[in-house]
Amino acid sequence: MDFAHSPKARDYIQRLNTFMNDEVLPNEAGYFKSLVRGARPWNIPAITEDLKAKARTAGLWNLFLPDQEHGVGLTNTEYAPLAEIMGRSFMAPEIFNCNAPDTGNMEVLIQYGSREQQDMWLKPLLAGTIRSAFCMTEPDVASSDATNIQATATVSGNEVILNGRKWWSTGIGHPACRILIFMGLTDPSAPRHRQHSMVLVPLDAPGVRIERMLPVFGDLDEPYGHGEVSFTDVHMPLDYIIAGPGRGFEIAQGRLGPGRIHHCMRVIGAAERAFELLCKRALTRVAFGKPLAMLGGNGDIIANGRMAIEQARLLTLKAAWMMDTVGVKGAMSEISQIKVVAPNVAQAVIDQAIQIHGGAGLTEDLPLAALFAYARTLRLADGPDEVHRRLIAKLEMRKYMSR
Amino acid sequence: MDFAHSPKARDYIQRLNTFMNDEVLPNEAGYFKSLVRGARPWNIPAITEDLKAKARTAGLWNLFLPDQEHGVGLTNTEYAPLAEIMGRSFMAPEIFNCNAPDTGNMEVLIQYGSREQQDMWLKPLLAGTIRSAFCMTEPDVASSDATNIQATATVSGNEVILNGRKWWSTGIGHPACRILIFMGLTDPSAPRHRQHSMVLVPLDAPGVRIERMLPVFGDLDEPYGHGEVSFTDVHMPLDYIIAGPGRGFEIAQGRLGPGRIHHCMRVIGAAERAFELLCKRALTRVAFGKPLAMLGGNGDIIANGRMAIEQARLLTLKAAWMMDTVGVKGAMSEISQIKVVAPNVAQAVIDQAIQIHGGAGLTEDLPLAALFAYARTLRLADGPDEVHRRLIAKLEMRKYMSR
Amino acid sequence: MDFAHSPKARDYIQRLNTFMNDEVLPNEAGYFKSLVRGARPWNIPAITEDLKAKARTAGLWNLFLPDQEHGVGLTNTEYAPLAEIMGRSFMAPEIFNCNAPDTGNMEVLIQYGSREQQDMWLKPLLAGTIRSAFCMTEPDVASSDATNIQATATVSGNEVILNGRKWWSTGIGHPACRILIFMGLTDPSAPRHRQHSMVLVPLDAPGVRIERMLPVFGDLDEPYGHGEVSFTDVHMPLDYIIAGPGRGFEIAQGRLGPGRIHHCMRVIGAAERAFELLCKRALTRVAFGKPLAMLGGNGDIIANGRMAIEQARLLTLKAAWMMDTVGVKGAMSEISQIKVVAPNVAQAVIDQAIQIHGGAGLTEDLPLAALFAYARTLRLADGPDEVHRRLIAKLEMRKYMSR
Amino acid sequence: MDFAHSPKARDYIQRLNTFMNDEVLPNEAGYFKSLVRGARPWNIPAITEDLKAKARTAGLWNLFLPDQEHGVGLTNTEYAPLAEIMGRSFMAPEIFNCNAPDTGNMEVLIQYGSREQQDMWLKPLLAGTIRSAFCMTEPDVASSDATNIQATATVSGNEVILNGRKWWSTGIGHPACRILIFMGLTDPSAPRHRQHSMVLVPLDAPGVRIERMLPVFGDLDEPYGHGEVSFTDVHMPLDYIIAGPGRGFEIAQGRLGPGRIHHCMRVIGAAERAFELLCKRALTRVAFGKPLAMLGGNGDIIANGRMAIEQARLLTLKAAWMMDTVGVKGAMSEISQIKVVAPNVAQAVIDQAIQIHGGAGLTEDLPLAALFAYARTLRLADGPDEVHRRLIAKLEMRKYMSR
Repeated sequence: MDFAHSPKARDYIQRLNTFMNDEVLPNEAGYFKSLVRGARPWNIPAITEDLKAKARTAGLWNLFLPDQEHGVGLTNTEYAPLAEIMGRSFMAPEIFNCNAPDTGNMEVLIQYGSREQQDMWLKPLLAGTIRSAFCMTEPDVASSDATNIQATATVSGNEVILNGRKWWSTGIGHPACRILIFMGLTDPSAPRHRQHSMVLVPLDAPGVRIERMLPVFGDLDEPYGHGEVSFTDVHMPLDYIIAGPGRGFEIAQGRLGPGRIHHCMRVIGAAERAFELLCKRALTRVAFGKPLAMLGGNGDIIANGRMAIEQARLLTLKAAWMMDTVGVKGAMSEISQIKVVAPNVAQAVIDQAIQIHGGAGLTEDLPLAALFAYARTLRLADGPDEVHRRLIAKLEMRKYMSR
Repeated sequence: MDFAHSPKARDYIQRLNTFMNDEVLPNEAGYFKSLVRGARPWNIPAITEDLKAKARTAGLWNLFLPDQEHGVGLTNTEYAPLAEIMGRSFMAPEIFNCNAPDTGNMEVLIQYGSREQQDMWLKPLLAGTIRSAFCMTEPDVASSDATNIQATATVSGNEVILNGRKWWSTGIGHPACRILIFMGLTDPSAPRHRQHSMVLVPLDAPGVRIERMLPVFGDLDEPYGHGEVSFTDVHMPLDYIIAGPGRGFEIAQGRLGPGRIHHCMRVIGAAERAFELLCKRALTRVAFGKPLAMLGGNGDIIANGRMAIEQARLLTLKAAWMMDTVGVKGAMSEISQIKVVAPNVAQAVIDQAIQIHGGAGLTEDLPLAALFAYARTLRLADGPDEVHRRLIAKLEMRKYMSR
Repeated sequence: MDFAHSPKARDYIQRLNTFMNDEVLPNEAGYFKSLVRGARPWNIPAITEDLKAKARTAGLWNLFLPDQEHGVGLTNTEYAPLAEIMGRSFMAPEIFNCNAPDTGNMEVLIQYGSREQQDMWLKPLLAGTIRSAFCMTEPDVASSDATNIQATATVSGNEVILNGRKWWSTGIGHPACRILIFMGLTDPSAPRHRQHSMVLVPLDAPGVRIERMLPVFGDLDEPYGHGEVSFTDVHMPLDYIIAGPGRGFEIAQGRLGPGRIHHCMRVIGAAERAFELLCKRALTRVAFGKPLAMLGGNGDIIANGRMAIEQARLLTLKAAWMMDTVGVKGAMSEISQIKVVAPNVAQAVIDQAIQIHGGAGLTEDLPLAALFAYARTLRLADGPDEVHRRLIAKLEMRKYMSR
Repeated sequence: MDFAHSPKARDYIQRLNTFMNDEVLPNEAGYFKSLVRGARPWNIPAITEDLKAKARTAGLWNLFLPDQEHGVGLTNTEYAPLAEIMGRSFMAPEIFNCNAPDTGNMEVLIQYGSREQQDMWLKPLLAGTIRSAFCMTEPDVASSDATNIQATATVSGNEVILNGRKWWSTGIGHPACRILIFMGLTDPSAPRHRQHSMVLVPLDAPGVRIERMLPVFGDLDEPYGHGEVSFTDVHMPLDYIIAGPGRGFEIAQGRLGPGRIHHCMRVIGAAERAFELLCKRALTRVAFGKPLAMLGGNGDIIANGRMAIEQARLLTLKAAWMMDTVGVKGAMSEISQIKVVAPNVAQAVIDQAIQIHGGAGLTEDLPLAALFAYARTLRLADGPDEVHRRLIAKLEMRKYMSR
């Protein structure tokens, strides 16, 4: 048992931290100011493209990809601390081309995409010249069970025809978003896990309509956004289906493991960032003649925050290590565990960071409200807490039933 | 000991509930849709004026005022359940002319205003033709102690000259907002609680500038809004000072008691509304073949929610009763207790209501995000949780020190 | 709505507090010392009989009985604060002849007992010359559902023959315990709620055997004790059945309402006592140069404790008032609510009182360990938390299903 | 980063688990029954000596000692999972000669003892033929600061004379206890951390008197016990002082690091054991026609328990690894973190295990009450939660002050 990161991971941690401290964080306030909220299409702050270029030059690009060809060959355990560092700022993941859902979409194209699909969509995604969205969740059915999906991807001759309504399609509001992956029902008579297909759909295909951008506590999450999207008789060539009809469920399953670890590590980074702001405020803000750190239960809040974050981090690292060593099936309970623990810890810590900042904590003057929205949303995205607790309990019970 | 409301209160409860169910709630979704978010000045949905007229005709107007002259003579204990009912909808309090900070401002003018001040500002406020703001909190000092206030209200001949920066001036974005009450330092050499003055300032006075509207988790709280406001050499006639120079602190203290009870009862109404939505969703949404109410810990969440709300309500009613029977000084601990309990209970219940609605809970399709923002803000407004806990502990300790 | 106690209740509160402070609490340490732990039969500290005589003379006797004939005519709402005061000390309830399960047994005999049963058992119980036990819970079935009971009360000619095993028969270890009420299955073919009977059984009846006294965290709860009791072919005359065969369930239901309110108010008294000790310790114990009250989160613990106890008390008083005004059926949710809230609040507050006392808090030098055991046990007795939460949720859901 | 145990650790884990399952757990119920509670001297269940012999033969002896000479050369990280396994049963640690406070006392003698002290006391302790106690905590001063100690160890010629009162001297009630280590004030004029001495004192030395055994919730923790001990003019030869006068504080500091890790891992074992019983009960006990696992929030309780234990374990393992790699100073925050987290998690999990067992959970029929007492006590022993939280917050703040 060894809690030290590998030399390779340590090297990337050091370089990424330097980049974050020198290039990203000093530009964060300006970034938020330059986001023009309101009517779409949204603008991308110019700083983003500048920093993307610098990050690519610095070799801090596509680090999430485990293979040497597209990424730099980091395991999940090695990438996890890097995802945490990126999670410290809302603006960071895109800069390193490591933001959801592009990461998951690239993984899917690498693993299941045809040569043509890769040439057309993977290459520009890897280069960061376009962005993408993932259209799976639907407003009318419990998204916790993918087999509930009602949207259709009907094969007809050389075409697949898409109909239905999706929402929480993250990233679809980004000005550079060009492609989305659509999940739909192809063959209701097939076995339960062979009924759905995933289809590549250019955003400008006729019949695709972004109905609205969904607010999270009033925040539209610019310049990414979460869209509600309707698909009305969208005709796509048959070879836009990824890996062929009926393999949607299989692809969806494989997509979730690493994605959840990335999300959880990023949200731990968000928690750590909020915690740092909390500590600094506690030391510098004075009331009743003392720094807040010396008042009431603030010391306990700090101690409890440190313990909660540290435990969530260790659990997430262990889940990453299990993914690397025993695979997504063997790590199933641990992945569900971090999916519950990390966002809840983060939400609580960020809430306390807001509290210690008083009214300022709620405003755009600090990154806290954005981080809070991220943590809160993550308690629902990729399966709500309840579904993961249910799975953890089931796996726990199974230990005693097999005996 | 009698937990039944008085016949008079019961009559108003019944009438107000009917009005809410028949007139307000059915119009709520339309109200939210008709709020044009974005650039100010904001619009007021037309329905608001219609319903205000109906409410006034129905005798459901200015109910918060305890006297027979301006209100209908309800005690705090009798008004409390009405505030709760109004708190069920973000749009409701204004309809009954019972929304903060106008309520507190009217109380101040009734109690401390001169005849001229009352004629000019109280009358239209009582009639609901104008609205008002209250400018006390400042960005640069801990607002938990009013004696910290740095803005100045300097008396010079026949004038008082105002300078300083305020924020969280709620309601200042409302198109009908015409007048604000400004709290500033007049005489630093006077005894500690005689240094400040409250001054009436028309919103359009030269030197008054709304710098920005503050978002709460990205939500601007239209059409009321929380302003950051600068005052630069604002010259006001001397008789715009309420009750004369140096009485600001005294007025502020008296203003807080009933205001906190109103806030707490409204936020309990918010919690109850969210809880009702939670229960209905639990009964109607199906996953894994069962209504959510039958799944996992949802039954416990419902039971715990009911117990938490009921206890917070009883505590708030007791605080109101103490205000009526032993006055604000005698009710000091209870008022601080409800100021901690009610918003925290509400925040937790609303968070769970959001969770059970999945992604929809975060959007404008439901009133939950707005209610959440209200509860979250209230944990900071009128003194953060920490300051109230501190006071409760101090009063508790005092019991044993005097023995 | 009026939170003031009635003049009659206030008079009893004042007299009972005086008696507690003058006669009971000063003798508490001696009482605990004089309990000889270990082999039974246990002794009763002499002080108990002395104080019982004084309490009876002072008119502080059988206060729990609502009628004027046996008690002094107090409603549940009026008795509740008295039960709280008695709950402050483990030794107190017996002194006022108000301890469980004698209270419930007396209520049963008053309401359902025959003249002969009353002469033989009710009179000495009312006089406090004997004590009693209640044998309902069984080790082998979930006691949360009385219809599960497996012990039998078989009618055969002029006799009823009892067989089975019971546990958590509280008070059966008391040297003055003479009579127990046994609940058993009489007619499995009758309708579900008409199958059981309650039978009076002298403790020395042949076939009744106390197998052991059950420890609660190692504490045997002397001199009352919780027994595991076997019944082997115990022959009783037919007229020892209370109210005749088949009415056991009906009697059990009626018994629970007031009993739960008594328990909850006593446990709130226990919490309040622990909280008082906590506050005093916080003021007097010094560490790092300051009283503990000034250190870390102790102020918050005090504030949170005050809020939690006050809310639990108000909820319990409301449940009592509902019992008085709408009866046990109408108060069903509230009674389950207090049964969850009160012991949990008490357990948490007492745990914190232990913590602030350091090692001393765990020992017999303080009443805290005994109070903790009481609160912990109450989370299981008369229905575990889980069953009550389940019922609360069900009643809550019902509101929306009938609409 | 590698979460796998070393091959050596895995080998011991496997062997220890086998021994526990084959030899210890099947004898646990008998062990508890054969403890004659009540008057001292207590007996040692015969099984203990049998199993000690077997454990020694099996090479599962003194595993806590990191050196190859006395132990088997396991690092803290390697020993940690073994301590967890031993913590599963109250009776286990002694069997492997790994129980507190003997472990800490042996460490002290190995590190600081003279050849004579080692011959006389270390050898029989290593052989498990005698046991020992540690007398540091005092009833009258806050034990959180060792410099408060009031007991005296006065050097006078060739002797050191001990006076004072100690309590929570764990293990002093064991029939084989022969030696204790006493901490006392020797030179109040010396620098703050050079004033105290540790002295070896045979239990039968004149002037040593066990005043009483202290109950934890009524449980005397037989056959070990926690003593309150008075020392009255106890004369010891000067060379019974460990490492010479004035080094008590230095020795105490070094003693705490590994000891806290051992305690925390054992209490995690206790939590895991309770959790296992909870799960089994949830699967086998039926109410309302379903196994408890399917009812209400029990699934959530199971999921939450698994997450809490797993996180506490990882944090404790990390603290052990830091102790191994950067030493006790570098691991200071982590050691305080586990000292808060592990016992609190264990107390909560064990409390829930009790709850799911109903009344049985409180009795001696299950190991739960004993495990609960262990976890509860550990929240006070070796520094209460509050002191550790205080230290964690201080270390956290320091990060920002040095910047």
